[in-house]
Amino acid sequence: MTPARASADLIAPVLSGDRRALARLITRVENRAPDALEALARLHPHTGRATLIGVTGAPGTGKSTLVNALALALRQRGQTVGIVAVDPTSPFSGGAVLGDRVRMTDLAGDGGVFIRSMASRGSLGGLAAATGDVARVLDAAGFAVVLIETVGAGQSEVDIARMAHTTVVVDAPGLGDDVQAIKAGILEIADILVVNKADRPGAQNTVRALRAMLELGHRLRNTGHHGAGLLPAPPESLTADTWTVPVIETVATEHTGIADVLAALDQHRAHLHSSGEIAGRERQRVEAELLARLREALLARLLAAHDPATLAETVRRVVARELDPASAVRALVAAACGDSDASPG
Amino acid sequence: MTPARASADLIAPVLSGDRRALARLITRVENRAPDALEALARLHPHTGRATLIGVTGAPGTGKSTLVNALALALRQRGQTVGIVAVDPTSPFSGGAVLGDRVRMTDLAGDGGVFIRSMASRGSLGGLAAATGDVARVLDAAGFAVVLIETVGAGQSEVDIARMAHTTVVVDAPGLGDDVQAIKAGILEIADILVVNKADRPGAQNTVRALRAMLELGHRLRNTGHHGAGLLPAPPESLTADTWTVPVIETVATEHTGIADVLAALDQHRAHLHSSGEIAGRERQRVEAELLARLREALLARLLAAHDPATLAETVRRVVARELDPASAVRALVAAACGDSDASPG
Repeated sequence: MTPARASADLIAPVLSGDRRALARLITRVENRAPDALEALARLHPHTGRATLIGVTGAPGTGKSTLVNALALALRQRGQTVGIVAVDPTSPFSGGAVLGDRVRMTDLAGDGGVFIRSMASRGSLGGLAAATGDVARVLDAAGFAVVLIETVGAGQSEVDIARMAHTTVVVDAPGLGDDVQAIKAGILEIADILVVNKADRPGAQNTVRALRAMLELGHRLRNTGHHGAGLLPAPPESLTADTWTVPVIETVATEHTGIADVLAALDQHRAHLHSSGEIAGRERQRVEAELLARLREALLARLLAAHDPATLAETVRRVVARELDPASAVRALVAAACGDSDASPG
Repeated sequence: MTPARASADLIAPVLSGDRRALARLITRVENRAPDALEALARLHPHTGRATLIGVTGAPGTGKSTLVNALALALRQRGQTVGIVAVDPTSPFSGGAVLGDRVRMTDLAGDGGVFIRSMASRGSLGGLAAATGDVARVLDAAGFAVVLIETVGAGQSEVDIARMAHTTVVVDAPGLGDDVQAIKAGILEIADILVVNKADRPGAQNTVRALRAMLELGHRLRNTGHHGAGLLPAPPESLTADTWTVPVIETVATEHTGIADVLAALDQHRAHLHSSGEIAGRERQRVEAELLARLREALLARLLAAHDPATLAETVRRVVARELDPASAVRALVAAACGDSDASPG
């Protein structure tokens, strides 16, 4: 074991393509080491060149295999690829027991590929922020495409998807009924839909169901629904060239349909630029990231501002029902923010 | 349409069992109406009697059917049941397009059951906090058992699971390889494991795999891994009666094995009390909830403290790479918390 280098010393090697330095810096970033967060600030000017692609969908869709196949196809046309796989959180082992999976064998030994499995370190970890940071390091290190694979669906997956330029949502036939509920939630973040395992029975039903739901979503959108954000949504130009979400069939295990997905990714990228939407995406990506970081920073600051005994006493009083949670939170916030000498800035 | 009543006026009817008042108050709580949050504070002394049971697992496991079957079995022995189903977030329609599902037909018209599907209203919504609040309203309204069903796996699901007294993790055979990764993350929050669809091929393999992973998790636990929390983990008594996570096979569609799950739930509840662990669980539930609320409250406060133009300019500078995200967050936090006149308490 070589002694750990400070993150600052890793910057130059990372920028010049040293993989061991890259792996170490990413580990420090993932662990939220303070000096790693400083190093990130210094890497920031070197970022913004990579295309960030989110790949998300329910378990059992063959998403990892698809990411593997996409990475191979990107490599075949000469692009370097970083992969960030966001594994589900384990509150206590740090998750990712199974580590980097089967796909490693296809991509192993290729210096143009770098794969990292993420695991959140408990609630305070800020998985979305950490994922954004790891993607940023890969961007600064010069990877042309960064694939961010998220397992499942939920708030953190939506946050992560917002960090990508293009979001691919993967589905597959025969996953059972409550996957339908998931589709309703994540369809709206899809730029490209993939029906993987398209050689299975029922694939055409899945394609039809997705098309129907896209049509419904399109109608809802045009009646004025929109989400909450850091800033008000910019007005959409009615005349801009609009993007029609394609539904693409693949059999990732046999590399069938992968060229179509790649073509759709290229088309979406071209669309983002020709429509001017790329600026909005970048803004949205930054907003999502700032919100995730603000939550983490504000909570850490508040916890640091209070004596552990005060926190323990607050928990005790809520448990004893002497205090309700909303009042407890108001009191903790007021005490921390009212303290003018408790602002180290 | 009757005019909306203020949340405060709904408290007495909710406590006396008025279902329409209950539905209205829950809607206001879910929408984070300020007066509803006040009403919650007044309901708090009436809470603490319900048993909160979390049911979580990957899509396709038949989790909703299991929750339905459990609710029916609980009703048959005379207990009232509230169900909170946490559907995946839709950043823009508010999710839950498919709404309350098939199970409604089994439980419809039974005044001893109340079902609510949750949907997060964007990132600011604080799904975990809202879910905790809805469960609290059902507790105050006198439901003996509150089943909290979460779809998928991820940080928010783990946060939600921490709000329950007992967490049931549902699995099923034949869900594909990357479900394995999910298991690694959520196994550790399980008090009871259910292998549903146990009449399908491969069920015995799933049972064996889960037992092996439990064994591994148990070994990890005994070598001193533990998670991050608001407070340091209390020392565990080495002599306390320990809980062995059971693996129970069910076919929820046929109500097979449901009695075994119910028996395990009763045993776990008895264990929590006989071991004294119930106090730790209550503390853990309160901690998880306070953390979720603090994140939401602190972010809302910070956003309110800043001029929208300042926020827009910060986003612009990060997009232009004049400023890195970590420095942007530091500046926003310092400006908001340094302002001593910006603390309305």
